[in-house]
Amino acid sequence: MNQIHRLAIVGGNHGNELTGVYLVKKFQQYPHLIHRASFETLSLLGNPKAITARTRYIDVDLNRCFDNKKLSDAKTSSYEELRAREIQQILQPQNQQNVDTIIDLHTTTANMGLCIILGNWHPLLLKLAADLSAINPLVKVYIHEQPKGSGFLRSLCNLGFAIEIGAVPQGILNAELFQQTEQLIYSVLDYFEDYNQGKNLPKNDLLTVYKSIGVIDYPRNEVGEIQAMIHPQLQFRDYEPLHPGDPMFITFTGEEILYQGNSTVYPIFINEAAYYEKGIAMHISEKELIKIS
Amino acid sequence: MNQIHRLAIVGGNHGNELTGVYLVKKFQQYPHLIHRASFETLSLLGNPKAITARTRYIDVDLNRCFDNKKLSDAKTSSYEELRAREIQQILQPQNQQNVDTIIDLHTTTANMGLCIILGNWHPLLLKLAADLSAINPLVKVYIHEQPKGSGFLRSLCNLGFAIEIGAVPQGILNAELFQQTEQLIYSVLDYFEDYNQGKNLPKNDLLTVYKSIGVIDYPRNEVGEIQAMIHPQLQFRDYEPLHPGDPMFITFTGEEILYQGNSTVYPIFINEAAYYEKGIAMHISEKELIKIS
Repeated sequence: MNQIHRLAIVGGNHGNELTGVYLVKKFQQYPHLIHRASFETLSLLGNPKAITARTRYIDVDLNRCFDNKKLSDAKTSSYEELRAREIQQILQPQNQQNVDTIIDLHTTTANMGLCIILGNWHPLLLKLAADLSAINPLVKVYIHEQPKGSGFLRSLCNLGFAIEIGAVPQGILNAELFQQTEQLIYSVLDYFEDYNQGKNLPKNDLLTVYKSIGVIDYPRNEVGEIQAMIHPQLQFRDYEPLHPGDPMFITFTGEEILYQGNSTVYPIFINEAAYYEKGIAMHISEKELIKIS
Repeated sequence: MNQIHRLAIVGGNHGNELTGVYLVKKFQQYPHLIHRASFETLSLLGNPKAITARTRYIDVDLNRCFDNKKLSDAKTSSYEELRAREIQQILQPQNQQNVDTIIDLHTTTANMGLCIILGNWHPLLLKLAADLSAINPLVKVYIHEQPKGSGFLRSLCNLGFAIEIGAVPQGILNAELFQQTEQLIYSVLDYFEDYNQGKNLPKNDLLTVYKSIGVIDYPRNEVGEIQAMIHPQLQFRDYEPLHPGDPMFITFTGEEILYQGNSTVYPIFINEAAYYEKGIAMHISEKELIKIS
């Protein structure tokens, strides 16, 4: 395995997710905090205009703009498409060292705790995830497979991943989650430092992962208006089993809508604010215990 | 006391506070739910453009546009200033019956539970508040004095008030809070119905109120950037006593900032997302037990 030479920490990919924004501002003010001897660490604000406007994005979701087509299309005109190309040029400059990994900082209104989202099954990422969950049992691991260049910032490189923290509303800082996220980032940096120095000792050889198998939308009428809310028994229950027949939604007039699937699934991203417009009430996943080699 | 002839329920005064938006949509679909024999009930969406855009407002905060100067200024040009005049014309049509009371539906990221916000000490409002808190002990009463025509929608009439529900993030529905808000509205309607019919029996003759005495901003640097977060020991502790010397904020580098006041206060609206830009980290109040006559 090659060494890690350059690592990027990105906050404010979504402008109203303040934890990442203020962590990156802190790292830019105190760079020694993210300095490690064996690699270079960049820190970067993703969407400055959206951060100023206290909104997720200005024109389109920046974190869906990192696909090969949009990045190479000279006719891109939205602010975020242009910004995605700028970010790519910073992280992957021509004829220079590209970043080897990206830590993309997010928050969610779902009760996801401290979640590491991996876009692939790269062994180094799985070992990292196992290490982090050994250090802090609150850490959860979600595998949401995305091919390289699929649109997400983290998909710019094989070792990119997201840290997704919740539940926290858009537009606010929760000090406890801020500090937990900060410690998690230091653990990631320490992990890569040890890795570069050949010191990685597996702290865990088994890892529980939640593997994405799809999404479920809200019940909607013919014009796309939602007709129900997340059921109170499901709200805040990310990572817990949802069995066939369990209540899933409740309509505005109080009728329960039950989960109709054939097998038990593990919902994640339950009631994420930004996903109403994307047609997503929750992600669903399978829970797996995997062996880390 | 005069009778209540017309009552208005307004949701979506802020476009990203979905509880009120979807309650008003429900009432418009099922008007019998808010029909009472002795008065007319209007239901109205406050800021349709902001609701569509899933944002608090388009140009300026609609709920600061109902002051006499803005409402009478023919040169108003922002979307919300124009919308405020439209709403005033609906609620207070010339030469027709004005609404006697307004229920303005809001949500907050602060942990305010089911809060009734009164803009004055009108005896009928205090009796209503005492009645509601007798029916549901979760109800809290906040008195934030505002003269008529001070900018808030509820200040259009003496008996206007807000229902402020939290904690709920902007942009999502929490089914449990949706249903509790709905029941609270029905209790208000039943109260006015009984009042019109001379049937109001005081359910409580004592009422705990939180009386606004000011606001506290985040510590900021010279360019207005916040330098600290709500302290974890204060987060979610709305209505609880804050004593001199208690931790109030924590800086990004972990230093505690203590409450420097001379007397115990009761913070409310702690860490409301929309108030970061307004220079408000929390409201502070005094707790009073008042006799309802």
